Amino acid sequence: MTPDPTKLDRLAEAAIRIGVNLQPGQELIIRAPVEAIHLARAAAAHAYKAGAIGVTVNLNDEQLALIHHQHGSEASFDHAPAWIFQGLTAAAQSGAAVLSIAGTDPNLLASADPARKGRLQKALAMASKDYMEQIGGFKTNWSIIPYAHPAWARAIFPDLPQEDAVAKLWDAIFAATRTDEPNPVAAWQSHIARLKSRLGWLNAQRFDALHFRSAGTDLHVGLVEGHVWVGGTTETTSGITCLPNMPTEEVFTMPHAHRVHGVARASKPLSYGGTLIEGIEVKFEAGRITQMHATAGEAVFRNLINTDEGAARLGEVALVPHASPIAQSGILFQNTLFDENAACHIAIGRPYAINAPGGDLSKTSGANTSMVHVDWMIGAQDMDIDGLDQAGTPTPIMRQGEMVA
Amino acid sequence: MTPDPTKLDRLAEAAIRIGVNLQPGQELIIRAPVEAIHLARAAAAHAYKAGAIGVTVNLNDEQLALIHHQHGSEASFDHAPAWIFQGLTAAAQSGAAVLSIAGTDPNLLASADPARKGRLQKALAMASKDYMEQIGGFKTNWSIIPYAHPAWARAIFPDLPQEDAVAKLWDAIFAATRTDEPNPVAAWQSHIARLKSRLGWLNAQRFDALHFRSAGTDLHVGLVEGHVWVGGTTETTSGITCLPNMPTEEVFTMPHAHRVHGVARASKPLSYGGTLIEGIEVKFEAGRITQMHATAGEAVFRNLINTDEGAARLGEVALVPHASPIAQSGILFQNTLFDENAACHIAIGRPYAINAPGGDLSKTSGANTSMVHVDWMIGAQDMDIDGLDQAGTPTPIMRQGEMVA
Repeated sequence: MTPDPTKLDRLAEAAIRIGVNLQPGQELIIRAPVEAIHLARAAAAHAYKAGAIGVTVNLNDEQLALIHHQHGSEASFDHAPAWIFQGLTAAAQSGAAVLSIAGTDPNLLASADPARKGRLQKALAMASKDYMEQIGGFKTNWSIIPYAHPAWARAIFPDLPQEDAVAKLWDAIFAATRTDEPNPVAAWQSHIARLKSRLGWLNAQRFDALHFRSAGTDLHVGLVEGHVWVGGTTETTSGITCLPNMPTEEVFTMPHAHRVHGVARASKPLSYGGTLIEGIEVKFEAGRITQMHATAGEAVFRNLINTDEGAARLGEVALVPHASPIAQSGILFQNTLFDENAACHIAIGRPYAINAPGGDLSKTSGANTSMVHVDWMIGAQDMDIDGLDQAGTPTPIMRQGEMVA
Repeated sequence: MTPDPTKLDRLAEAAIRIGVNLQPGQELIIRAPVEAIHLARAAAAHAYKAGAIGVTVNLNDEQLALIHHQHGSEASFDHAPAWIFQGLTAAAQSGAAVLSIAGTDPNLLASADPARKGRLQKALAMASKDYMEQIGGFKTNWSIIPYAHPAWARAIFPDLPQEDAVAKLWDAIFAATRTDEPNPVAAWQSHIARLKSRLGWLNAQRFDALHFRSAGTDLHVGLVEGHVWVGGTTETTSGITCLPNMPTEEVFTMPHAHRVHGVARASKPLSYGGTLIEGIEVKFEAGRITQMHATAGEAVFRNLINTDEGAARLGEVALVPHASPIAQSGILFQNTLFDENAACHIAIGRPYAINAPGGDLSKTSGANTSMVHVDWMIGAQDMDIDGLDQAGTPTPIMRQGEMVA
């Protein structure tokens, strides 16, 4: 199950040098599933080579969650180890960077009691609140990279033997993270420069709205005034530039919650809460989804958009060219870190503060509010997108799936 | 390499119920090498069954130490992750119990720079000082249990194929920890009761000295006034009884640093700092080693006893019957957790406060002081021991290697 060590090493190097952008003398914490131990070791080696003052690997064994559900007392489901997050918060506050290696068995807790799962998640959210504020507020530099969890590989390639499925997922990961190239660091630098120039152009246009057109989609998405296009790297409060997600292909901004109209057809199935929702078609009027249909999982989708008022309105719109290596793989990864980088998408629900003028949602007229945030893909190789000014004059952004600007 | 799951489960159960003696509602931290993950999972399951409010497993990957030595900057060898120990200290202070699973590759860092190793150990000692005070001061309940690290197995059984060596070491561990018995918890309860009754008798005798006799040994060991015999379980400051070491067979107390005379011959080689010291013979006069000889490693042993004034005097004397399952195995484990429980032994150097009257070394006349503490075995199946009162009247304690009292 161990992948090509050369490519694994390149992924580790890109994670340290581009993802985390570890500074000489900085401490690093690597949070990893125990199955990803080889990738964690390779990342630790590159961290020391980059001048880390110390590297600590926090290995997580997801089997312990299963053991907890099997044998834990009722009271234990309202408990989370606060001391770990206190330690992580103290580390981040003292300048430690964080590399997270992502990957879990999506079906591990399928038969566990949903109420207990919910209580544990709440306890965990409360215990980790300060830590998540360090991360979400970019008080330190961090990044998330993937690894090919066997159970994830099985879910994507159910017809392949286990080993082949894992090998195929590794190949897809290496392609998506540009670590199948001889010099991934250089490849990332030029990819980030490309995204940055795209952001610069988009932010300079001050578009009033976007107009999406492809088979089944003819959608006007009004943007909030002063919206900020974001993508690729982010700067921490102390001025370190990191790449929070690897892979990353999208540039995204904030729609106006009341200025969306037209129809949209999903170009890929949406994997949500263990259900695959297929053939989504929606109609927006004055920002709100007023009609919806799906060929599979329609009830789940209907429940989702009925969660609250904002769940039927948009919080994010993102542009991804069809040339994206994730799109080119043709794989439905059933994992947001990948799928949202495969195609143009819209997200119902909560917007991001980083897309708000001045980073302040509360002062943004037309910002949506919701408890949920769910992306789904509308992009395809026949997608045309125009930017519209207040007079409705179009400027081409995308033609036949590729960026023209 | 995975051992018999039934026996592993029994070891885990004994570790939780007897070793840590986890209380319902208590939190547990398991510190384990990543190779011992199956034992850690089994212990977590028993902890939840015992009513743990939460179980956190801290997996340590020793390969990271090697990676550090290979790639770390010079400054990194003076650094330890303080935040982990702050977290562990906070957890112990809030009542979390600790189970440590012990096992490392004794040769992993054989070629690493000794000066860097020393600096790292110092940084680690400073970072972990508060935590070690929680543990050493029994502010919470804790226990150490072994597992069969492949490299440890290789060192003990160099002539066996790897898998056979590991299997043989597991068998020895199961025997030494009484987990080859159908009801290890009951077996431990009766073993602890036996040790307790032995301690009760020894503490009631108020011996002035012990007289050891076997082939090559004729040694009088004076004991400090008010000495306390200790062994088996220990009570925490909050009143929880735990068994810090599993296995444990010894009962031990404090010699008088100036009242030891006669000759002693080691009954087993002493593994010290990577050297096997064989055929040790020493002569004590007025508490001090005045003559010494060893058939192998004599220079290392000489350096050791010349460390400081107290390194040539005794700090501990311990009684272990030849019926000890560790002695019966006939294996030299090259590991103190095991070897000190195989035979009567003496230790040069620092004494333990728990053997001092009132637990206070500073008020104990005749207590040794030293930076070192090294045990070596003098017990064998021909060992006779008498306790002597102040008039020199003997009371039999051991005959032909077995306790008679």
